[in-house]
Amino acid sequence: MTDTNRWLLPEGIEEALPPLAERLETLRRELLDLYHAWGYELIIPPLVEYLESLLTGTGHGLDLQTFKLTDQLNGRLMGVRADMTPQAARIDAHCLQREVPTRLCYVGTVLHTRPDGFAGTRSPLQVGAELYGHFGMESDLEILRLMLRTLEVCGVESPLLDLGHVGIFRQLAEDAGLDRQQESDLFDMLQRKAVPEIHACLEALDLPARSRGHLAALAELNGDENTLAQARDRLAGAGAGVFTALEALEEMAARLRAAHPGVALHFDLAELRGYHYHTGLVFAAFLPGNGQEVARGGRYDDIGRVFGRARPATGFSTDLKTLVRLSRCPENPAPAAIFAPADPDPGLEAAVEDLRRRGERVIRGLSGQTGDAAAMGCDRVLVKTDNHWTVVDA
Amino acid sequence: MTDTNRWLLPEGIEEALPPLAERLETLRRELLDLYHAWGYELIIPPLVEYLESLLTGTGHGLDLQTFKLTDQLNGRLMGVRADMTPQAARIDAHCLQREVPTRLCYVGTVLHTRPDGFAGTRSPLQVGAELYGHFGMESDLEILRLMLRTLEVCGVESPLLDLGHVGIFRQLAEDAGLDRQQESDLFDMLQRKAVPEIHACLEALDLPARSRGHLAALAELNGDENTLAQARDRLAGAGAGVFTALEALEEMAARLRAAHPGVALHFDLAELRGYHYHTGLVFAAFLPGNGQEVARGGRYDDIGRVFGRARPATGFSTDLKTLVRLSRCPENPAPAAIFAPADPDPGLEAAVEDLRRRGERVIRGLSGQTGDAAAMGCDRVLVKTDNHWTVVDA
Repeated sequence: MTDTNRWLLPEGIEEALPPLAERLETLRRELLDLYHAWGYELIIPPLVEYLESLLTGTGHGLDLQTFKLTDQLNGRLMGVRADMTPQAARIDAHCLQREVPTRLCYVGTVLHTRPDGFAGTRSPLQVGAELYGHFGMESDLEILRLMLRTLEVCGVESPLLDLGHVGIFRQLAEDAGLDRQQESDLFDMLQRKAVPEIHACLEALDLPARSRGHLAALAELNGDENTLAQARDRLAGAGAGVFTALEALEEMAARLRAAHPGVALHFDLAELRGYHYHTGLVFAAFLPGNGQEVARGGRYDDIGRVFGRARPATGFSTDLKTLVRLSRCPENPAPAAIFAPADPDPGLEAAVEDLRRRGERVIRGLSGQTGDAAAMGCDRVLVKTDNHWTVVDA
Repeated sequence: MTDTNRWLLPEGIEEALPPLAERLETLRRELLDLYHAWGYELIIPPLVEYLESLLTGTGHGLDLQTFKLTDQLNGRLMGVRADMTPQAARIDAHCLQREVPTRLCYVGTVLHTRPDGFAGTRSPLQVGAELYGHFGMESDLEILRLMLRTLEVCGVESPLLDLGHVGIFRQLAEDAGLDRQQESDLFDMLQRKAVPEIHACLEALDLPARSRGHLAALAELNGDENTLAQARDRLAGAGAGVFTALEALEEMAARLRAAHPGVALHFDLAELRGYHYHTGLVFAAFLPGNGQEVARGGRYDDIGRVFGRARPATGFSTDLKTLVRLSRCPENPAPAAIFAPADPDPGLEAAVEDLRRRGERVIRGLSGQTGDAAAMGCDRVLVKTDNHWTVVDA
């Protein structure tokens, strides 16, 4: 093994060097300040937890994505968090136990066993916000608007917003009398929009013709606002849950158009990302002309139940490393620092202290060092004239 | 298993709930701003790396503290970082490859297999700064002063500073002709100041009387400034490395007393924490009247060699969660937010937007929610008078 590949990072595991790390820090602060202004309280969920605490109620997909560790103190299995949303739900249900609506936000690295998404990362820097304790359109809308504001902070003014509702597939699966395994198989095919597979599967299941027709239609029900009207037509005769969901989507679309005229809406009734814990509206934001999803979220009312308290819940999350690639900050900011020569003069030390207190970045020279002010990233230097230290351009 | 212990976190794994998480965030920003002002560039090292990259050159102790994971993509062993200092050294040597002195800082969670320190944590929020590319007192002094300033930011004005130098033990081990295993065993006993064990071990090793006397003296050479004079006396006849180290300690002590008169100095010549990668001055800060170490650091010139580039290096690190316990911020800050009732009036939305833009925290009421302004942590409310929304005390 050569030195070069010996120190390569594992695939999908990234480090941030200067100046990227500074840009991530700046964006991190802007977003946490935004969430603070909206009343979201910061939590720092633990990096690892016991597996049953991390995975209960979240489904098989998250389990496969979770790295497992053995706790040497007692032999129990722990997992490195692969998603912070279930952690936030546990904290709301089990630790905070408030009666009032609770708004939480978080930022931190999560780890996945396999690369996913277009960025191919296994260590997203997940940032998100969750609203617990309110059932209804208003909380979904608040979360959606906060997600759009998050993208705006990063310079994405007109994202494409993909809306779906897992209530539709759930009702159709119930109408068809699918068992858990059948529902899960079909879900997987719908995710992949694997139309021939879906048809073969529906054929094999020997369902009533109407159910087969409804489930087959789902993969095709995506597009602009006409999608909802088409859905009413093609899903006619389905259980009431389908129409409750379609109404919710219509109302959300109307409210979003009023509040964010710049946002392009797209409907995808087979969009079931995170289906294993979502229960209502689901959404994802894309960049126009780019297949890469940049943020996602939805309602997940049931997840708190396993933690002893089923509270309504809605939230979104995104990856700070993806956002920073979209943001408008300059990639290589101009140097803005003052170089102080290696000089033991106490007057210099006082001048340095004073400049730093006034918000300047001051880099001390070190005896015998290589590199001048410019090489040290400084645009100015401290020089002594008439027994007095002053800042001049480098 | 009851629900209560089912959701318990693993021993030594902590989460931060509000308002603690906010306090951690505030302190995090204050410290990163301080490091920025001193010219330290932020890096974000990866949470996991291949084991050889994480552990090469760091010694057995860190290996035992590191959780191991198998990379499913290729079967190679990865580790969750247990210390960010070796990661920073790799980044300096392998990624940045600059000729000039390089100042780096970082903050992030590290994971240990077993609890350590008085706090008993297994997931410290490590924060630290490292200076590469300069050999000599000035860089050690800069790092020490930055560590003291870090503690000052947290309200610790007069810490106890413990100074040592691994060059002393290294020279004595060399004088005595100890092999690697003997050196390591003796090192372990010195760490624990296990005087009877040290004497038994030295007896068994059949060393020349002088070496035995020197090594035995080491465990007792700790205390105030007289320690260095005593060391000169009791280690007379040892190799030159001992006296170079004592001189370095004397000079550092003089410079520190000049720059930080409030700091109490303590010398401990058997203080070898981090010995496996440290090479010169080592130091730790304590609170007066408290055995808990709150920050530590030292010189580790050799670590970059395994990454293809041996650069002089010195640095310190500490745990943000320990620091926040010392800091003077109020534990439960008074509420400072404005409650906006659930009212669809567009004028209210505009007022909310405006207040948030001006830096206020505004929490929206949600239809049918439980809890009034006070229950939502608000000290003020938005009320409508004469078709106009104004802020009044709650």
